[in-house]
Amino acid sequence: MTSIRYDVLGIGNAIVDVIARTEEDFLLKQGMRKGTMALIDAARAEAIYRAMGPAIETSGGSAANTTVGIASLGARAAFIGKVKDDGLGHAFAHDIRAAGVTFATPPASAGAPTARCYVLVTPDGERTMNTYLGAAQDLHPDDIDADMIAASAVIYLEGYLWDPKNAKDAFLKAAKIAHAAGRKVALTLSDAFCVDRWRDEFLQLMRSRTVDLIFANEAELHSLYQASDFDTAVAALRADIDVAVVTRSEKGCLVVGPDSTEAVPAFPVERVVDTTGAGDLFAAGFLAGLARGADDRTCGRLGALAAAEVIQHLGARPESSLKDLARETGLAD
Amino acid sequence: MTSIRYDVLGIGNAIVDVIARTEEDFLLKQGMRKGTMALIDAARAEAIYRAMGPAIETSGGSAANTTVGIASLGARAAFIGKVKDDGLGHAFAHDIRAAGVTFATPPASAGAPTARCYVLVTPDGERTMNTYLGAAQDLHPDDIDADMIAASAVIYLEGYLWDPKNAKDAFLKAAKIAHAAGRKVALTLSDAFCVDRWRDEFLQLMRSRTVDLIFANEAELHSLYQASDFDTAVAALRADIDVAVVTRSEKGCLVVGPDSTEAVPAFPVERVVDTTGAGDLFAAGFLAGLARGADDRTCGRLGALAAAEVIQHLGARPESSLKDLARETGLAD
Repeated sequence: MTSIRYDVLGIGNAIVDVIARTEEDFLLKQGMRKGTMALIDAARAEAIYRAMGPAIETSGGSAANTTVGIASLGARAAFIGKVKDDGLGHAFAHDIRAAGVTFATPPASAGAPTARCYVLVTPDGERTMNTYLGAAQDLHPDDIDADMIAASAVIYLEGYLWDPKNAKDAFLKAAKIAHAAGRKVALTLSDAFCVDRWRDEFLQLMRSRTVDLIFANEAELHSLYQASDFDTAVAALRADIDVAVVTRSEKGCLVVGPDSTEAVPAFPVERVVDTTGAGDLFAAGFLAGLARGADDRTCGRLGALAAAEVIQHLGARPESSLKDLARETGLAD
Repeated sequence: MTSIRYDVLGIGNAIVDVIARTEEDFLLKQGMRKGTMALIDAARAEAIYRAMGPAIETSGGSAANTTVGIASLGARAAFIGKVKDDGLGHAFAHDIRAAGVTFATPPASAGAPTARCYVLVTPDGERTMNTYLGAAQDLHPDDIDADMIAASAVIYLEGYLWDPKNAKDAFLKAAKIAHAAGRKVALTLSDAFCVDRWRDEFLQLMRSRTVDLIFANEAELHSLYQASDFDTAVAALRADIDVAVVTRSEKGCLVVGPDSTEAVPAFPVERVVDTTGAGDLFAAGFLAGLARGADDRTCGRLGALAAAEVIQHLGARPESSLKDLARETGLAD
């Protein structure tokens, strides 16, 4: 049997974020839905970039951000995702490796450029995202390294993978290998509109136990069950999956098991600068807790701690050592 | 006679900054001199990037940062500098134009890639810079648009231009056109080691009145006159140039005229995050003050205000409207 080399292996769209601060009226003029992620084509990407203000570029991608957070907490992380062999692709590969995450997916040598996400941050700290998938479309089942999957205690998949055409098959291949090796499979629902695009398939993944654990925020949960009542949605969730973690921003999270519900509070934050990556880093903390066998409450608190760090600055990856922060708050030795 | 369309036109190396936080021992291991700018070749650039931590990319370049600060203060700014027609070049052009600066220098279609500067920021907020000049080497006298120069009240040149081989001639051509049109020429000495490389030529530029105004920090001033005594260096400076502005970090600045010296205090800063761009933004504030005919003290205070903004966050360009900050502090209507 393969021994475990990684606590968590993430699979997701490999994306570079292009971040600019903006006023609310820019979103209105551009017809953007605040707080959500929209998929855009190359022409729309060009038009948005031309219209937006001065930007900074920083590596992103939901599951990629999560693996970086896991490494920052001192756990062993790996990532699978597709970039092109271009400037942004080199920056993505550099940044994730420099953060201590194993990343070995070969870059595409032809085809569309590395994916980018135009992130508009309004004065309230909320982010509105526009993603041009580019080379991330080319993630293929052949990119799934069976040895790496079997050597990972948990594989973590982003719901956004349902958008690029070949990535679904890569996802299902990875889940099958993981379960055959006795590993766990986790999924984040990613975005309420992503859930709206793929509701039936996500429910099928849960009910068939293709996934063992899901992460969802309130909007995604309501979208999944098309239910306006929170308790009704949570009850439905409990029937459909072994463990679910529902994040509720400043209200903390709920860890929903077969017979239990644990409410875990958030960490207070002085000023929300940019919410990009909040969900990704919450998942990082929770999964890093799971990796060392912590209880639900500690996992939830580690998630809250990591999310609190990332929303206090621009960009979706931690700027401070999360391990040091966890020690300072008594959440790690 | 050409009418004035720009308050300030900057000419400099067009550079994208690649910024990472680092510990002191990284600088030691890499043999870097803390707080200075070193020129590096492509192989060294690759080696530094491989060794450094996760980074963010943001447009930089000394004179380019200054023009962005001038635009942020509501004055009219233009920039001349050379990028390549590549990803970083597009980002540079987007960012400076989105900041309101006129930038029309055609990008190079062949040759070295767009210049980049690897900026290492230590926990004390000090930055250590390593610049690969790339396409900036290709700035040529043909890139100097005579109409734009003649239409600019002040042209502002960075000492770093003395490093790329053709840029010197571009600099001298621009200064000649400016003076023929009755405009002023300003120079920043850029860096103490840059002064060390080009001391005699910089003194010659001053003594021949090829430049009318210089900006220097204390280290650059000491390097220029190889003098350890500050007052001796200031006295030498007074004899060599019409107006000089000497910046002294938290001690503020001295505005040195033929018969006068005005000491202007700095703005208090809560926490220094990253000193990159402090000198560039000081020059922006001072020149924006000059453009509206402010007195030395107001020019110095505007410089201090702009510098204070930029050192409180990562990156060398303002994140807030400097015009709004100037209004809040009573330095603008």
